[in-house]
Parts: sequence; structure tokens; C-alpha cells
Amino acid sequence: MGDSRATEKTAISPRREQDFPEWYQQVVRAAELAEPSDVRGCMVIRPWGFGIWENMQRHLDAMFRATGHRNAYFPLFIPLSYMQREAEHVEGFAKECAVVTHHRLETGADGKLGPAPSAELSEPLIVRPTSETIIGATYAKWVQSYRDLPILINQWCNVVRWEMRTRLFLRTSEFLWQEGHTVHETEAEAREETLRMLGVYETFVRDYCAIPVFSGSKSESERFPGAVETLCVEAMVQDRKAIQAGTSHFLGQNFSRASGIQFQTRDGKQEFGWTTSWGMSTRMVGTVIMMHADDDGAVLPPRIAPTHVVIIPVTPKEDTRAAVLEACDGLAAELRRARYADAPVEVEIDRRDLGGGIKNWDWIKKGVPLRVEIGPRDLQSGNVAVSRRDQPVKAKEFMPQKDFAARVPELLDTIQQNLFSRALEFRDRHTRVIDSRDEFYEFFTARNAAKPEIHGGFALAHWNGSRAVEEQIKNDLKVTIRCIPFGEAEPGRCIFTGERSARRVVWAKSY
Amino acid sequence: MGDSRATEKTAISPRREQDFPEWYQQVVRAAELAEPSDVRGCMVIRPWGFGIWENMQRHLDAMFRATGHRNAYFPLFIPLSYMQREAEHVEGFAKECAVVTHHRLETGADGKLGPAPSAELSEPLIVRPTSETIIGATYAKWVQSYRDLPILINQWCNVVRWEMRTRLFLRTSEFLWQEGHTVHETEAEAREETLRMLGVYETFVRDYCAIPVFSGSKSESERFPGAVETLCVEAMVQDRKAIQAGTSHFLGQNFSRASGIQFQTRDGKQEFGWTTSWGMSTRMVGTVIMMHADDDGAVLPPRIAPTHVVIIPVTPKEDTRAAVLEACDGLAAELRRARYADAPVEVEIDRRDLGGGIKNWDWIKKGVPLRVEIGPRDLQSGNVAVSRRDQPVKAKEFMPQKDFAARVPELLDTIQQNLFSRALEFRDRHTRVIDSRDEFYEFFTARNAAKPEIHGGFALAHWNGSRAVEEQIKNDLKVTIRCIPFGEAEPGRCIFTGERSARRVVWAKSY
Repeated sequence: MGDSRATEKTAISPRREQDFPEWYQQVVRAAELAEPSDVRGCMVIRPWGFGIWENMQRHLDAMFRATGHRNAYFPLFIPLSYMQREAEHVEGFAKECAVVTHHRLETGADGKLGPAPSAELSEPLIVRPTSETIIGATYAKWVQSYRDLPILINQWCNVVRWEMRTRLFLRTSEFLWQEGHTVHETEAEAREETLRMLGVYETFVRDYCAIPVFSGSKSESERFPGAVETLCVEAMVQDRKAIQAGTSHFLGQNFSRASGIQFQTRDGKQEFGWTTSWGMSTRMVGTVIMMHADDDGAVLPPRIAPTHVVIIPVTPKEDTRAAVLEACDGLAAELRRARYADAPVEVEIDRRDLGGGIKNWDWIKKGVPLRVEIGPRDLQSGNVAVSRRDQPVKAKEFMPQKDFAARVPELLDTIQQNLFSRALEFRDRHTRVIDSRDEFYEFFTARNAAKPEIHGGFALAHWNGSRAVEEQIKNDLKVTIRCIPFGEAEPGRCIFTGERSARRVVWAKSY
Repeated sequence: MGDSRATEKTAISPRREQDFPEWYQQVVRAAELAEPSDVRGCMVIRPWGFGIWENMQRHLDAMFRATGHRNAYFPLFIPLSYMQREAEHVEGFAKECAVVTHHRLETGADGKLGPAPSAELSEPLIVRPTSETIIGATYAKWVQSYRDLPILINQWCNVVRWEMRTRLFLRTSEFLWQEGHTVHETEAEAREETLRMLGVYETFVRDYCAIPVFSGSKSESERFPGAVETLCVEAMVQDRKAIQAGTSHFLGQNFSRASGIQFQTRDGKQEFGWTTSWGMSTRMVGTVIMMHADDDGAVLPPRIAPTHVVIIPVTPKEDTRAAVLEACDGLAAELRRARYADAPVEVEIDRRDLGGGIKNWDWIKKGVPLRVEIGPRDLQSGNVAVSRRDQPVKAKEFMPQKDFAARVPELLDTIQQNLFSRALEFRDRHTRVIDSRDEFYEFFTARNAAKPEIHGGFALAHWNGSRAVEEQIKNDLKVTIRCIPFGEAEPGRCIFTGERSARRVVWAKSY
């Protein structure tokens, strides 16, 4: 994707094509998005990375509100016994969680601080890996009658799923997310909600993160533990692997039965509520990087960038310094009066006492959409030098300063559109309709096994619906069904067994 | 405070004067702000209570940004050894914390789920009670030179301090807060920051929560464990006790020495950074309730209310129902175009299939600033019936519907001002300059020890600066020094010892 400059020096080393996983870590570090902490598996999200997440939160939250949801907050801890209420759920989550066993520390006989034996909890608590069970226990108290429904609540919080091998944003023991939890009177309403929230994610990922997705449902083996149906949006990033960008679960009555969420129906009977849950996490920040970044660092879609325009004063001589800085302040003030994505344009002036080249490269690596240099010569000409992050890093366009502020929203829109178009073109180029087992195996096999190599993509292929086939493919190729897409069915024959298939499904390697 | 209607039935029972602690719990429940959860000491913050916190966050966050701070996120867990790095700090926090000892559950021989013995952590982790130590470890990596300073970062997160006796919002094992953590080149800059953030809290509490405060510094015995100086804003609530509404700590070089935050100075030497931390929590939601609520429920300052105006359709007859609902929708749309406190006016139409009286009382209990009833007669007259929550619950003012939307921002401002004026008058009425030990003891002693009784308030009295005196007063009366106020010193004599005193300090019972 983008221009390949195999021989030219790039800001990030290694380049994508050399070692994609290492390139990713280097971009995250160079852009100052996040870094590992001393606590195993936990990351520090730095201000630039957190600013992206805050913008994601702001836009998603507005969409949740517009669809009738309100935010609330439930406990961090879940009693051990709650986890056991839903049989599949405990299987899925109990294996990788942080267990709180004591509520006090004390200095032992050896002079060392440790858990106080007298403060052992009678029932251990689990740090929430997801909140279906603890929220369900509360909803059971709130719901008595059909008049109490629907309950439409979302929570923004941290969750913990213990991980041994971690990767910044994509897989960490602690991460941030939102989890929506709703209860409905009928199955139809709950299914409609599940679909509605998937639609919110699809819109958000496309229109804000500039990433095209396939949406559909998961096969049984990839479902959320305890769900009747799991819907998802799946993106293809630059190593052609899939990342699940958001999921929405129809939980049927499984969790309401486990938690006792029961209500009196309109005709006076007792029934269990129909519940859903849906979530998107800080993994999305990593997805955006894997999708849009290049060999010079992050490339941020303007609608989620913490800063839209950085102004870099060029002050080679002391006698013109004050005038240059004044011009920068004036331009920043003017830009901040303009609006983009429902908020004022975010502008930063880089006043650091460093050379212009270093500053410029720092902002390239951070992926800020527009960079503007103002120096003594520009003051005379009345021009500013504008660089777009979606164009080659050395490209500059000179434009009259008086026009620039008015043009910024349009420039940002153009960049946003451009990133989406590139991503779509990339995905389509690496999505292949495959009708034979041999072609499928070849598609997912690196040509040179000795050398890391980006290959494969999304395969659209027929499948007989059997779990055994999924297992086989996973074992052979590490390829799984990412989703069973919505839309018109096209019947055919399973490429592995020759059996009937109702529709093509999306296969890929995945994160 | 407000009108005392000792004989009239009120929506909240008991009344404030009968049993203040129980009245508080009842208001929190009746207003659907929060409730206890099944997890010991943890609360569920319901949408209405969380909406208040979200508004607090929005306004505070804007003030943090305007003073140059950016948000970030640090790990939930702190390695045990980190807590021990600062000696006073571990003393203050190790005694009441959640300790994670295992990272997996498994089913034992007895068929029960429990912590897996094979998954015991080599070093236990503590769920953060506050983040100085874990953030300090990160800052130590970021800071090399004076050029890296200042670091101005804030974090919004959950923290856990184990509590046996809890009270919703005021004291719970888990709570939500923000914690700012900054590093500076010089002591003067760090002290200036400490004071600046106290000023932010003072402004926020006064202008958004409509609560007047005393600001000042804490005596040594009330300081944050590890701080050189703790500044605070202290509010008086309706039982005349003090609540600390926010604190700002000057940490000197204690934590930077403990964490190794060292930098090269402008003249090439190595020095430890000067750090500060400052925080405000969901306790503020409880403070607002204790300050402004009355015997009919919550009374919310408009600038932090989740909804400003509730429209209650009065639809006694089926044939006028559609017209009434249409008028409500029209008014809501008009109101949402108006702005208040930097955002659109928040409006809700209560469409529930319940009687008008029930609906009206629900909103009284929730404390929404303006209630508007629209019925068939109002359609004809062109009027709306408007009730203000800061006025007696049965008061109504009829005003032309066409003027109402335009008047709402002004009405909300009037309510906001009115709540502040009442709170100020209340505090001043119960703040007494005291010059003798006898008067001091009498002020803080209930007249009828057998019966709960609201008494005392803030005493402004001279003190010799000795910890022994503080201990004595605390033991005798449960009264402590809430703050040593800023402002001009007025020398005098300690009322307990007759020794010299530089200034009067604020004494009170407190939460």
C-alpha cells in the first residue's frame, strides 16, 4: 500500500514488507501512542494514543446516545460464583483472569510486605473480563414488568484478560472498552438491537476510522461464550490479516436465565428477558495504525486525530523570530474558529527549541493530518507551506495564508476520503473468490517459508457448515472463518467436501 | 435549609432533621443515582447518577485542557514492591487494598472453581488505590533532561481502597476519579501547579456545583501519605459537617526520589524532578446531594444536571392525546436548539404510561431543574406550566409557550445562582468565630445526646500548631482541622493552650 521506496531510508525501521509485526511495534513507539509497562501484560497509553481513543469515545458515545442508550457504571469485581452461572461463559473466561484473594497487606515476620493471612476473602473476586454476569445480577433487580423494558445501557471501562504474549493495543492483559448491555421484551427486539449496534460499529469504523469492513455473523466455533449469535465487523489490515473491529451478541435468554432477569409479560405470564451485549475496545487504535500507517509512521484519519493541524515555526534568525511566532499564533487562532467533525479544529504550535527537520519528522511519525511551516520568507510572500500526511512526506503545497483556514475542513475531508479509498482498494485487491481447495491452500501459503512474507488476504469460499472442516483448515493454515456475511445467498458447493453450501464465507488469518 | 414543613408529608422519609444519614441514602435511592451491588463495598452508578458524573467530567476536563494538561492511561495494577518505595505512602495505602495473587481459575478436586495453584503470581499485584508509584516508574523513563519538563498529565479511572463500612458515593471500595500527575523543573513551578489546580477545583465546585468552599492547606496529620503539602477545598453540607471536595498535593522530591525521576538541569547537573498530584472523585456527586437536596429528593445545579427540562404531557383524554404529544415534541425540538453551559439544552419527554402525579414526583425526586406540563387546556391558552426545582414543589408559573424556550437559559442561570446563594448563606450562618475553649466544646456538642441532632458547623479558631492538641480535640469531639485557610494571617492565641497562633484555622466534624 502507498509508494514502495525500497531503497530510500524511512523513518520506521524495519519497513512493513520486511517485518510487519516489528514495524507495527516501532510505529506505536515512534508515534508515542503507547508503551509496555513494568506490570506484565499492561500497557501505558500515552497522551497521543489516548487522544485517539478519546475521539473514538466521543463519536461512538454520540451514536449510542442517538440510539437511546445511556451510560452507567458497574463494579470492577465479579464474585467467583457469578462466573459459574453461565456454563459456557465460565469456560470461556475463567482461564485467564486476575483473581483477588486478599483485601489487606501487612509486613510479615520476615519484614516483607505481603497479603495479610487474616484478610483472605471468603469468596475470591475476579477482575471483570466482561460484565454480563455482574450487570445481569443488577438488571434482575430492576426488571419486574414489561413496563421496565427495554433497558439500554452502556459502560465505558477497563477489563482484564490475562495474556502471556502481548502486543500493544491488540492484545494486552488490561484494555479499555465499552460494553453495551440491553434487555428486551421480545426476541425480535433483541435481534433488532444486536443488528442496530453492529450497524453503529460499521458506520463508525467506515466513516471515522476510514476502514471498510465485512459484516456478518460468526460461525459457532468463534462465538462469544454463552451467546446464541455473534455478529461482527472484520477489517483487513496491511499484512492482509483480519482484525475484528467490533462485535454485537444476541444472547437469547441464556444470561437472563442464569441471572434471573424475569418479567411479567403483557398477558400476565413470567418470562425471561432477551438480552444483548456489544463492545469495541482500544484494539481499534491498533487497527487504525495497522490499516493506515506507512514506513514513516502513523497516518491518522482526521476525524479521530487528536490534532488536525500542527504549525511549525521556522525561525532561523533571532530578529525575525517574534514576527514568525506572532504569525503562527494568529493562524492558530483563526484555525480554531473553524469546525471539523462537530468540534473546533484542533491546532498545535510546536514551539520546542529544536531544529525544524526534527520537529517535522516527529509530526510525520505521529501522523498528524496537516503540517504547516511558517518562516520569514512566508511572512513576506503571504504564503504557508502545507504538507498532507496522506501524500509523500516531502510534498509541500504553497497556498495563501488568508485562504488556508477556510480550506482546512475541506482538506481534512479530502484526506479522510483518500484514506478510506486506499483502504478499500487494498482490501478489494486482496479479497479473492476461490472455488478450489488447491487454490485456497496456495493463497494462504507463503512462497518462501524461510522469510517473513505478507501473503494471502480474504478468501470468499463455499463451506459445508461443519466444525470439522473449520478445525482442519485452522490446523493446516491458521486460517479461520472471519464471518458469514450478510446479503444475498449464493448457493454452491463446499470447496473442501463438495457438499452443498448456502453461501460463501470469509476466510482469513487473523489477529 | 429551605422551608421546614415539619408536619407536611414529604417524598423522602425520614426528613433531614430526623436522620440525616438515612435521609441521604434514601435520596440517592429515590433519585436513582446509585445503589449497592452484591460485591462488598462496590456500588452501581445508575444512568442518572452517572450523567451527573459525566457532566462533571466534561467541565473539569475542559479546565484541565485549558491549563495545558492532556489525558493518558496507566495500568490498573501496581506491583507490590512499588508500594514500598515511598515509606509513608505504603503506610497510608497498604492497609486497605485489593490484592491479586493468581491469574487463572480452575476446577479443583472438589468440583469447585477456585484460584489455580499453578497460576500464583511470583509478585502479588495491588489494584491501584492511587497511581503515584506506577506513574512515577513511567515518568522515570520519559524524563532525561530539563527539556522533557514539565509533564502535565491527567488520568480518569477507577481506584480501589477496601472499606468495611460504606456509604454510596462518599465511601465505597471502588470509586471513579481523576488523578493529575505532573513533574516540574523547579520547586517554585511545582508549587505554582499545586495552587493552580486547587484553583481549578475551587472554580469548578463554586461555578458548576454551586457550592462555596474554604480553601487552604492541611495540617501535617491530615496530609496525603508522602506529600510535603496537601491543599484542599472544603465544603459544608446540610448536617454542617465538612466534606473535602478536591485535593492538590505538592509532593516535593519524595516520589521522584522513590521512582528515580531524574533530569539533567540547565547547568548540567542531575536533579530529582518536583512532582504534584491532584484529584477529585465521584464523592463530589454525593457532596452535591448532601448540599442541595431537600426532603423531596435531589436538587441538581443546572450546570451538572443530565437533563435540564423535563416535559410531562398531560393526556387525560384519548382525543387530545396526539395534539398534546405533538406540542411536546415541538417544544422539545425548540428547546434543544437553545444552548446552556456550552452544550445544547438537554430535554426529555416523559412518555411513560403512568399518571401525571407519579411522573411529576419522579422528576422532583430526581432533581431536574425545570418541569413543564402541557395538557389540552394549555394548547388552547398557548401557555405552559413551569415548575422550578429550587422553589416549593407545588409552585407553578404559567408562561406563554412561545417565550419559554428563549427564557430557559436565563431560568437555568437563575436556579444555579439561587442554589449557590442558599448554600453560601447556609455556610456563613453556621460558621462561627470562636475564641474560647468552652464555646468551642459547646459548639460541637449535641444538646440532646440521646437523639440524632444536627449541630455545630465550621469553627474559626486559633491553634498553636501542635499535633497533640489536634489529637485531643479529635478524641474529645471527633472534630479535626479541615484546613488552614489562605489569606491574610490574623495573629492571636491558641484557644486550647494560650500559646501564640499565626492565624485562625477551620475546625469541623467531617466525612
